[in-house]
Amino acid sequence: MSATLETIGVRQEQGVVFASLQAPPMNLIGPELVRDLVALIERSEADESLQVLVFSSADPDYFIPHVDVNRIAEYRQAAAKLAGEPSLGLLFRRLSESRLVTIAQITGRVGGAGSEFVLACDMRFAAKESAIFRHMEPALGTIEGAGGVQHLTRLLGRGRALEVLLSAEDYDADAAERYGWINRALPAAELDPFVRALAHRISAFPRGGVRSIKARVNAIALAPADDFRRDSDLFLENVRQPEAQARMRAAIERGFQTREGELDLPGLLAGLAGITAASAAS
Amino acid sequence: MSATLETIGVRQEQGVVFASLQAPPMNLIGPELVRDLVALIERSEADESLQVLVFSSADPDYFIPHVDVNRIAEYRQAAAKLAGEPSLGLLFRRLSESRLVTIAQITGRVGGAGSEFVLACDMRFAAKESAIFRHMEPALGTIEGAGGVQHLTRLLGRGRALEVLLSAEDYDADAAERYGWINRALPAAELDPFVRALAHRISAFPRGGVRSIKARVNAIALAPADDFRRDSDLFLENVRQPEAQARMRAAIERGFQTREGELDLPGLLAGLAGITAASAAS
Amino acid sequence: MSATLETIGVRQEQGVVFASLQAPPMNLIGPELVRDLVALIERSEADESLQVLVFSSADPDYFIPHVDVNRIAEYRQAAAKLAGEPSLGLLFRRLSESRLVTIAQITGRVGGAGSEFVLACDMRFAAKESAIFRHMEPALGTIEGAGGVQHLTRLLGRGRALEVLLSAEDYDADAAERYGWINRALPAAELDPFVRALAHRISAFPRGGVRSIKARVNAIALAPADDFRRDSDLFLENVRQPEAQARMRAAIERGFQTREGELDLPGLLAGLAGITAASAAS
Repeated sequence: MSATLETIGVRQEQGVVFASLQAPPMNLIGPELVRDLVALIERSEADESLQVLVFSSADPDYFIPHVDVNRIAEYRQAAAKLAGEPSLGLLFRRLSESRLVTIAQITGRVGGAGSEFVLACDMRFAAKESAIFRHMEPALGTIEGAGGVQHLTRLLGRGRALEVLLSAEDYDADAAERYGWINRALPAAELDPFVRALAHRISAFPRGGVRSIKARVNAIALAPADDFRRDSDLFLENVRQPEAQARMRAAIERGFQTREGELDLPGLLAGLAGITAASAAS
Repeated sequence: MSATLETIGVRQEQGVVFASLQAPPMNLIGPELVRDLVALIERSEADESLQVLVFSSADPDYFIPHVDVNRIAEYRQAAAKLAGEPSLGLLFRRLSESRLVTIAQITGRVGGAGSEFVLACDMRFAAKESAIFRHMEPALGTIEGAGGVQHLTRLLGRGRALEVLLSAEDYDADAAERYGWINRALPAAELDPFVRALAHRISAFPRGGVRSIKARVNAIALAPADDFRRDSDLFLENVRQPEAQARMRAAIERGFQTREGELDLPGLLAGLAGITAASAAS
Repeated sequence: MSATLETIGVRQEQGVVFASLQAPPMNLIGPELVRDLVALIERSEADESLQVLVFSSADPDYFIPHVDVNRIAEYRQAAAKLAGEPSLGLLFRRLSESRLVTIAQITGRVGGAGSEFVLACDMRFAAKESAIFRHMEPALGTIEGAGGVQHLTRLLGRGRALEVLLSAEDYDADAAERYGWINRALPAAELDPFVRALAHRISAFPRGGVRSIKARVNAIALAPADDFRRDSDLFLENVRQPEAQARMRAAIERGFQTREGELDLPGLLAGLAGITAASAAS
């Protein structure tokens, strides 16, 4: 784990890797972050002394807000390095299948493919004071394409999954805990010591049992690759529609993909009502 | 959406249809209500300007208590108009597959096939003060036959589903939220504005993404038609047994299917203990 | 239900059997308890007047802590009497398929295969003050092999199931309720009357509907026998590894399988860090 990664700070303690996301200005998923994520997974899996991988954010306001909508083709290509095909969802699914136990320690806003990334982790703990969960895809004319539908439907059940996937609303950590989006909401001051202790605890357990447990849980709860692939394709198909293109352009004009603009993302998205391909062209 | 429906009040606002159930004396599911529900679904789906359908009750005490047990053959025939076969469960499953996003705004008692109706909706929000959820089927000698087993087992998990399906007890809105029967319990005063805002919000999103999301969630969480069909058949088979017939007659003598008699339905049902085909015949 | 059982106190009231686990010193699962459990199930199923089976513990501190790790081959043979093959998981799965409705009334510590036993019951209610839930398997180098993976993944979802199965931590009744491990946590004083009333209520319902409901829920939520079998095999494979053997020996030296030693089981297990086959041999 020697070489430095541009967008992820890495610290190793015994069998645990602590990975801190730091891709300014706001941890959008772009080709650099995906490239570094691929490198981190490959290096960590290759080191047999490691058993647990913890993800946190160096940005107090944003964990991962979503993908960079201007660089979709690029980050998909970067994902193909490990996933074998250009799909963020299949890269995340590959992470779920890792022999490593992964824990997301969430502070700040996590949305779209950022939510899909933490859903691909094995466990999710979030700070009550700052964590916010959101899916903006339907407001922009598309579907959650990187595994969110697969995980949220299984975790939350049909009714709450449809609400979360369709509403494009904000959910705080307590709401996310009640719905089952995350394992638990904790006071911010307790989050780091809690996750740290859990990570070290699991990292000290024998490798065999841990691998068996993860494999057997995945056999039940991790959707087939074809289902991730289909969602990934539908994301692209919908994104290419003129109305979705018009919505994304209008969103960017209103502050989408900026730190300030996404503080009230539900409000920004509500302002897109009435924007169609025709209205945007006029 | 021009012609008036006898048992459902309909109001349209932009892309949202607000449907208010009004089938006196207590919104039992009979052939008229099913006929009007079929008409409402068909008309709403045919109007491309519509995207969301909200169901509420005009009766403050009863949302839908259950089917009219004296008119089973009739309402099943009415369901066949849209479902293609005489089964309430398959009609409700057809509603779950609709391109429209459906929201149940629940006040008052909802039980039996009424619960199965709201479970077929895409989301469920209920008033803390008045909503009560119940399944009386096992006390009457039968099984929840219109999709309740399918939805509740997936939403609540094996243990809580068995409790709810087997106990014939009352669950208030908070309990229903904790178990995952509904999305959320809200103070009655907040329920209407909350649902209204959510409905309008989703109705303004592009059609393509919304359809993709609903289709993909259904592919995971909506049980196959054959499973609904099997439950529907088992409901009928059990209902025809002499003990079930004796129980239903005794229940009706004690106030079942009356507004007053169902205020304390669990108590009424407990009073049926010891009634068998033989005891009823004597 | 005449002959007395050595490790289970049995009391019958109308259609309900109350079974009280009493296998000193701490209700470990050994061949005697399994033998008696098999006898109890067979006798109760043979008596058509019975419909509900309630399990509680005569030991205030321990419900069932886990299997007796010194008698694995023996209790597996005892399980084969009813399961048809030497697997505790398949015996528990057989219990889940019983025509009887089973309720676990939980006080004290329940862990490992004890947790898997209550998960095999149809419903679980626990005392807020005393019930503690735990899975120690990964700390000892193995996997939950008697159905825990199957049930917990379906009840809790992927994230919480992985946490519970991998952390070997304690969860109190409130936490277990929030995660969906149990139906409900109740004040200890209310637990007995609540379960008793529920058991009698269900026992008075007609047999046909109750059987239909349980069969249909199982068709959805009870994993195939092959999945239980695979977990059972993985448990044995992992247990036989030198590191697991070393961990189990070390755990027993530190008080594992004693009343006093398991009061703080998570602490005891944390003390095993660093123990490997090599370290133990040195």
